[in-house]
Amino acid sequence: MTVAVSRPRPWVRQLILAAGALLSLVLGCGPGGGTHRRTAASSAAPLASWNDGEAKAAILRFVATVTTPGGPGYVPTAERIAVFDNDGTLWAEQPIHFQLAFALDRVRALAPRHPEWRTQEPFNHLLAGDTAAFLAGGEHALAAVMAASHSGMSTDEFAAIVKDWLRTARHPRTGRPYTSMVYPPMLELLDYLRSKGFKTFIVSGGGVEFIRAFADSVYGIPPEQVIGSQGKLRFELRDGKPQLVKLPDVQFVDDGPGKPAAIQTLIGRRPIAAFGNSDGDQQMLEWTWAGTGDRFALVVHHTDAEREWAYDRGSPVGRLDKALEEARSAGWTVVDMKADWKQVFPAE
Amino acid sequence: MTVAVSRPRPWVRQLILAAGALLSLVLGCGPGGGTHRRTAASSAAPLASWNDGEAKAAILRFVATVTTPGGPGYVPTAERIAVFDNDGTLWAEQPIHFQLAFALDRVRALAPRHPEWRTQEPFNHLLAGDTAAFLAGGEHALAAVMAASHSGMSTDEFAAIVKDWLRTARHPRTGRPYTSMVYPPMLELLDYLRSKGFKTFIVSGGGVEFIRAFADSVYGIPPEQVIGSQGKLRFELRDGKPQLVKLPDVQFVDDGPGKPAAIQTLIGRRPIAAFGNSDGDQQMLEWTWAGTGDRFALVVHHTDAEREWAYDRGSPVGRLDKALEEARSAGWTVVDMKADWKQVFPAE
Repeated sequence: MTVAVSRPRPWVRQLILAAGALLSLVLGCGPGGGTHRRTAASSAAPLASWNDGEAKAAILRFVATVTTPGGPGYVPTAERIAVFDNDGTLWAEQPIHFQLAFALDRVRALAPRHPEWRTQEPFNHLLAGDTAAFLAGGEHALAAVMAASHSGMSTDEFAAIVKDWLRTARHPRTGRPYTSMVYPPMLELLDYLRSKGFKTFIVSGGGVEFIRAFADSVYGIPPEQVIGSQGKLRFELRDGKPQLVKLPDVQFVDDGPGKPAAIQTLIGRRPIAAFGNSDGDQQMLEWTWAGTGDRFALVVHHTDAEREWAYDRGSPVGRLDKALEEARSAGWTVVDMKADWKQVFPAE
Repeated sequence: MTVAVSRPRPWVRQLILAAGALLSLVLGCGPGGGTHRRTAASSAAPLASWNDGEAKAAILRFVATVTTPGGPGYVPTAERIAVFDNDGTLWAEQPIHFQLAFALDRVRALAPRHPEWRTQEPFNHLLAGDTAAFLAGGEHALAAVMAASHSGMSTDEFAAIVKDWLRTARHPRTGRPYTSMVYPPMLELLDYLRSKGFKTFIVSGGGVEFIRAFADSVYGIPPEQVIGSQGKLRFELRDGKPQLVKLPDVQFVDDGPGKPAAIQTLIGRRPIAAFGNSDGDQQMLEWTWAGTGDRFALVVHHTDAEREWAYDRGSPVGRLDKALEEARSAGWTVVDMKADWKQVFPAE
């Protein structure tokens, strides 16, 4: 039986594009001075942080349709599967994916234990703050940083490292903990869907073990409902005790066409609702939308440069181009963050 | 980032060993005449099909410990994860894994559409009933049969094919539908654990899409709680409609050390109870057993040649050797099917 795994090019390419954003923000300056208007959400009505408009109305209409017993669009509870992208859909992703920020911080934290990095590419450039030289390393440099930060420890150790980072790291522009850069309107949506019998899953291009470190406490999504990109694990006995050790090899890249494949392989049911924000979510949205009966597909469009970031076609991170076109032609719901959301980040 | 996938040798080797059993049973004779004593299970008490004995007592004791609020071994509901092997643990696996029987039947069913198979190895030998020549093809022959029967169709089409086969195929010895060769004591155990707040998962070396075709209706285990070996899927548009097409390449082999790795990657919590029957379950049992707090590990030992089959160390299918030794030295629970189970198969 032949086994072929393609190299994770789209994902690495995205990292490379994203790395351009490192220039001033991660290697250079400290926290910037962005200020965000925030409105406290009332908890009385569902989706209280959503302004009245087509997006909110479409959500309420869909949920009413699939949950009305005896109605023409009724869907049994077991089949109410809703899938959510994470980066840019449930939390922010600018100026670089937060997991890449973690990887870079981790390399700096590990540097004292790796004196050889002072002369070893690409770590020497990263540690010296020479962004241009680091980026010149391309795919190889980024892969080296991901491998150095995401492998060589047990899964238990990695979870502890990520939790510690999430507790202490601050976003360079907002100064907030990364877990305070989640979107309350989406948290309300998760709660609302669950209150209506939906089972909510994350289906992310990010690493599954990274996301699980906060998904339960922040999103109310338990580990077994988090799907993400996977690294290989090696089972071994250390002093007679079983360990799962994270390897630098990629098992599966959960992005683009990988998302519906992962949904089929790991959930085994076609979702009836899908939520994303970038071209990496397009196939997941298509797969969901093409099912029989009532389906819901939603794209979060980042339109709010004042409270968050405004980006779509031209962005190296979370590029939204073809999926936005398809949303418009197919009739998917598009959230205009600036117009549709009363609040973008939680009150501090 | 380098990507390396090892060939699924253990799994293929197991198939080859198992293929020896083809000789008389699958290519040769029709249904044999095995008769099975069956006892109707009372539904009054938990585990009614289990005789009183150490295995049943150990299960009841463990469940009481982890579910007693305020007790020293209490485990919150969300962490009550129980994992079950499928072949030989929840249903029978002799004389060959039922999925291999499906694959061979499928090749025969497809033969009219493949006239080239009449002269193409290994299909020509299989179709001519020349077992020796077929087996001489080794890994390659078996892989060809698996690929021909398990790829080239959409996931929806494959599910329909498996369901159709399960409805019509009969086991060569018992003449029963394969789904009537499940073990009532284990079905009771699944129900009992779920009634105590456990979330039950299948973690099988078999193909995930094959098992899902019956896991919900037969075991009460929904698709999203079935973990198995995975083939690669390709997302494609057919007449503008998204399809997931099954490819002949292996994505992940969920056997041996692959089982704890899959549990970590796909569930993300360490189980507190694990149930298996062969050396392929050893690492899953070790991983479960090594967690902190009260843990439960159980091995089903096939000791009943009259009502089922008696096999362990010497069996090409479901070999139980090292895991049986470890069960005894570590203090895992061993089920003696002949002594512990009032009933092996459901009443017809």
